[in-house]
Amino acid sequence: MSKEIILDHWKHLYANRVALMFSSEIRDLLSLSARPDIISFSGGLPEVRALNYQKLERYTQRALKMNGDISLQYGSSDGYYPLKTRLAEVMKLENIDANEEDIVITTGGQQAIDLLAKIFINPGDHIIIEAPGYTGALNSFKSYEPKIVSIPVDSSGIITSELEQKLKELKNKNIQVKFVYVVPNFSNPSGYTLSLSRRKKMLSLAKKYNTLIIEDNPYGMLRFEGKPIPSIKELDTESSNQNVVYISTLSKIFAPGFRIGWVVAPHPILEKLTLAVQSSDLCTSSFSQRIAYEYFSDPCWKENVIDFIKIYSARRDIMIKTLENHFPPGASWSRPEGGFFVWLRLPEFLDTKEILADAIRNKVAYVPGSGFYADNRGQNEARLAFCTENTENIEKGIKILSKIIKDKIKLYRSFK
Amino acid sequence: MSKEIILDHWKHLYANRVALMFSSEIRDLLSLSARPDIISFSGGLPEVRALNYQKLERYTQRALKMNGDISLQYGSSDGYYPLKTRLAEVMKLENIDANEEDIVITTGGQQAIDLLAKIFINPGDHIIIEAPGYTGALNSFKSYEPKIVSIPVDSSGIITSELEQKLKELKNKNIQVKFVYVVPNFSNPSGYTLSLSRRKKMLSLAKKYNTLIIEDNPYGMLRFEGKPIPSIKELDTESSNQNVVYISTLSKIFAPGFRIGWVVAPHPILEKLTLAVQSSDLCTSSFSQRIAYEYFSDPCWKENVIDFIKIYSARRDIMIKTLENHFPPGASWSRPEGGFFVWLRLPEFLDTKEILADAIRNKVAYVPGSGFYADNRGQNEARLAFCTENTENIEKGIKILSKIIKDKIKLYRSFK
Repeated sequence: MSKEIILDHWKHLYANRVALMFSSEIRDLLSLSARPDIISFSGGLPEVRALNYQKLERYTQRALKMNGDISLQYGSSDGYYPLKTRLAEVMKLENIDANEEDIVITTGGQQAIDLLAKIFINPGDHIIIEAPGYTGALNSFKSYEPKIVSIPVDSSGIITSELEQKLKELKNKNIQVKFVYVVPNFSNPSGYTLSLSRRKKMLSLAKKYNTLIIEDNPYGMLRFEGKPIPSIKELDTESSNQNVVYISTLSKIFAPGFRIGWVVAPHPILEKLTLAVQSSDLCTSSFSQRIAYEYFSDPCWKENVIDFIKIYSARRDIMIKTLENHFPPGASWSRPEGGFFVWLRLPEFLDTKEILADAIRNKVAYVPGSGFYADNRGQNEARLAFCTENTENIEKGIKILSKIIKDKIKLYRSFK
Repeated sequence: MSKEIILDHWKHLYANRVALMFSSEIRDLLSLSARPDIISFSGGLPEVRALNYQKLERYTQRALKMNGDISLQYGSSDGYYPLKTRLAEVMKLENIDANEEDIVITTGGQQAIDLLAKIFINPGDHIIIEAPGYTGALNSFKSYEPKIVSIPVDSSGIITSELEQKLKELKNKNIQVKFVYVVPNFSNPSGYTLSLSRRKKMLSLAKKYNTLIIEDNPYGMLRFEGKPIPSIKELDTESSNQNVVYISTLSKIFAPGFRIGWVVAPHPILEKLTLAVQSSDLCTSSFSQRIAYEYFSDPCWKENVIDFIKIYSARRDIMIKTLENHFPPGASWSRPEGGFFVWLRLPEFLDTKEILADAIRNKVAYVPGSGFYADNRGQNEARLAFCTENTENIEKGIKILSKIIKDKIKLYRSFK
């Protein structure tokens, strides 16, 4: 939509939540990063061109020939059963034991996040998120008008001592926390991975304070090195009183264009979620689900994940190396063992929103840090996605950024 | 999900709205109507087998070969621009003048309904719907906790004199109605079409009471006979202060499995809607949108709509004829000029929920009326979808229903 200024005659009709629904900086920037002359470190766009298109054609043919009347029709709100079988197999590789009954399929991981927020949040309720945290979750949560409590992360993920203190504090005020939201593996945006000991601590805190953990794991399978760490879901071995709601997606190990995510949770929560799916979009695309079913029925999908890992780890390597060789002292960054993102911290006197204007003039884009905080901190921070551009462009783009930042520092010092 | 009874440990965490989110009877019945031995008048499942699968294969091939990197990738939250061009052309055939800037694409019409509710409804706000009305809208609205005001329909659609009285009454109490929701053509569930004079009256009432009309038009192109009536959107010729938010979908003229709907509305509303899409599921499936783009780029799609019309009108004919020839006196039904549904009224002493149990034992399914009312009226009413079964099954199914109902009446009379 064009952004012309027009009178809004309907201001008297909007719900209160509309004032809280800001445009996510990431989405606004996607329009920029789509321009072919821009080297984009902004959107976390997977390298879908690494997929085998011929195979995809065959799968869609099969989806139409063998099951056209299912693929083109409405489906059930909890998802296409045969795809659930495949998703259970995918999770098995991450040591998560779930069967079809434990799964509800959603229109991407984003819908899972949004509908869980819808199920749990009354206006004014307290929820806890890691900071910086996934901006898409943050924006969705905001639209249900909660009080958002931010707990900082370090290189081992969310700082559980601070989480514990906050939970205690709220408990003393008789406040029930609805859930704690984390991305444990190669987090968006920080790239950090939550350590095993902190996962255990989080789980014990959730049990102690009788709350839920929403464990959002889009990147877990994209580990480039190091030993996988058990998911919080896996650590929660109690059978009847599970505290973990687990979200994942096919957007990173297959393709985001199909919009397929899923949730594993205690059954009463899944029942509520299914009702929420019904009133949200009736069901996830049957056509998408059927193609995903075909894709994950062919064992080759695992080889394709290995291809993805090769591509992304080479891109991370060149990004980290170029940062090390060219960025000025005073800047620091995360060194993720997987996923899509490096988190950048610049000296405090720099403003990454301001620098972005210069960067885009020089044909490089990234996401300023403030969009990843509920309280607009992070003005000297930024997210650099290494998943989208090839290694040559990454090297070139980081060098351009480095020059801009060095110039800014020089300018700042000259005025001091 | 299986319906085993298990303890819900998370009751202390749910939002208030969860108590209002009942399972829609339609969706629950879909699982029944999917059984191949059941003659289903329940779900409004389009006859997708009438589509040309070979062509669809070609379109998906093209979506992958020519634009795989777009079709498989995240897209922009307001929708795929080239598809908007096609949707504008589709609307032109219904005399609606809109361009790409006036359109936001959603994950089916249902998402459009849900996100408009999210944008406009604060808990306790007043909205108005036709009664009986679309159960999917009703359930979605409920989840935002409004006060729902029901206005009855007759064979010319929502009764505008009653609408006017109610608007006046609420205005006198200083209550601002957020919107009035109607399905003007061959309504779901009533099959009735809103007359031209009432459309004009509705629009003038919306202007007088400074509120919006949500005009949901999934069936408009499926007119079997009679002259098309201008949409309320078309009647609203004011350029800057339009009172109509128009929703449509490709589910009925193409296929529901792709989950593509759209909204035409004043631009400030579209901006809010785009933000709502972002936090709801980021974007509608790029793959679906690209295939729909290919489909509607081939002029043949119009011939396929003509095929659909032929199929559905033959099915309506046989349903009406069999009702006329076999149903007992005291029963009455709508005679829709298009769409998917016939609305059935039985003598008041009969309960269509109770009869449904018998019907299903005799391998026939339909939807009891109460799910289409906000206040659970309609216990002696039912929705009969004629879109799904072939003519032979329709005749057979209606005869079975007729026998069950006649037996019930006989039984009732014998006890009187």
